Amino acid sequence: MNILLFSNSDHYDDSLIKLDGRRHKHIRHVLKAVKGDNLRVGQIGGKTGSGIIEFINEEYVLIRPELNENPPEKIPLTLIISMSRPKSMKKVIRYGTAMGISSFVIINSWKADKSYWQSPFFLEQNIKEEMLMALEQSGDTCYPEISFYRLFKPFVEDVLPKLVKKICLVAHPYAEKQAPSSINCPSVVAVGPEGGFIPYEIEKFEEAGFLSVNMGPRILRVENAVAAITARLFT
Amino acid sequence: MNILLFSNSDHYDDSLIKLDGRRHKHIRHVLKAVKGDNLRVGQIGGKTGSGIIEFINEEYVLIRPELNENPPEKIPLTLIISMSRPKSMKKVIRYGTAMGISSFVIINSWKADKSYWQSPFFLEQNIKEEMLMALEQSGDTCYPEISFYRLFKPFVEDVLPKLVKKICLVAHPYAEKQAPSSINCPSVVAVGPEGGFIPYEIEKFEEAGFLSVNMGPRILRVENAVAAITARLFT
Repeated sequence: MNILLFSNSDHYDDSLIKLDGRRHKHIRHVLKAVKGDNLRVGQIGGKTGSGIIEFINEEYVLIRPELNENPPEKIPLTLIISMSRPKSMKKVIRYGTAMGISSFVIINSWKADKSYWQSPFFLEQNIKEEMLMALEQSGDTCYPEISFYRLFKPFVEDVLPKLVKKICLVAHPYAEKQAPSSINCPSVVAVGPEGGFIPYEIEKFEEAGFLSVNMGPRILRVENAVAAITARLFT
Repeated sequence: MNILLFSNSDHYDDSLIKLDGRRHKHIRHVLKAVKGDNLRVGQIGGKTGSGIIEFINEEYVLIRPELNENPPEKIPLTLIISMSRPKSMKKVIRYGTAMGISSFVIINSWKADKSYWQSPFFLEQNIKEEMLMALEQSGDTCYPEISFYRLFKPFVEDVLPKLVKKICLVAHPYAEKQAPSSINCPSVVAVGPEGGFIPYEIEKFEEAGFLSVNMGPRILRVENAVAAITARLFT
């Protein structure tokens, strides 16, 4: 936890916030902070800054925040990603959020096991929690956007054209072109499930103006591929 | 598992290999392969190619390998990494091996909890298994090198000077310079524990000729940072 995030509901009065539970435990037992200490804080969806501990006991802590900095900028990347194993998806959300991806679009694909859509991880609350951990890790305050499309064809035909950005790539292990690097401009990148998109799916992306690119001779796990391509495109 | 790896001890005779256990299960129940099917295979430490299933039953499979391709090249990166939480280290080893890191050097640091060194993950066998999974994922056959130094000062004074390559970087969240990208040449990168190296440690790296670099305004988990910096430097 590199920043303590709070929301409006944590306000104790106009100038103090009151934290208990997980955040209080972190302050008391991990940071071992005491009255008068200064901590890095941020308002969810808002600014960051520092906060002085005005009071702390076994149950809660009162902090006076001073917020005057903007959170780190998001990277202008929309990640379209096939549903994968819940353990992998969790890491995709975590690493992607920490790295500053603006928007996640989770879609179905031929090779995605249908049971993945039943995973409790995809209850909105669980995703929000995973994102919160990643924001706390990376010092950010703003949740990325997330959306879900359970039917591939309506997605590529109706939604995909609206997502098009300056650079549109679909990661495909057998593509001839190598993925570009350091593009640093608004982009959409599609990443397939373990085993990749099938030719029909790649074709549909290409019809929508996406360029198929490989990421080198090594096939990476989906969460590893997401971290790698994000770092490669935005440096 | 994108390649089936075997070693000399798996030879059934001069031209056949016999696999049981985990690999047999994968062939039979995940790939659902039958006699006559062609699979991607590789000899640990050697070449890759294809193998025809000559026989398969409930217990084992006999494969005739034809090996005529080189595995993907390693990237010329030595990763010096502070001991971290075993769960993180496991992922560092897994992602780093899959991405082709040549050599891991695991060191102690001020902020590394001493108990981490007791973790059963650091039994050689467990690390080898984690590396094997990553080789199977990425289609590689060669284990990276790995070494351990439990004392920081003797490491930086006696060992570090011998590790110096063309580019030597130490990742430091508060460094002024940004990490370079697409260097694609022999490099050594040092990554600290959660919370980073302390100033004394950074100083020691700098004395040895390392440049302190930041990776942007976001602080990433150690395994995420390793995947990101590897992708950034080698694209």
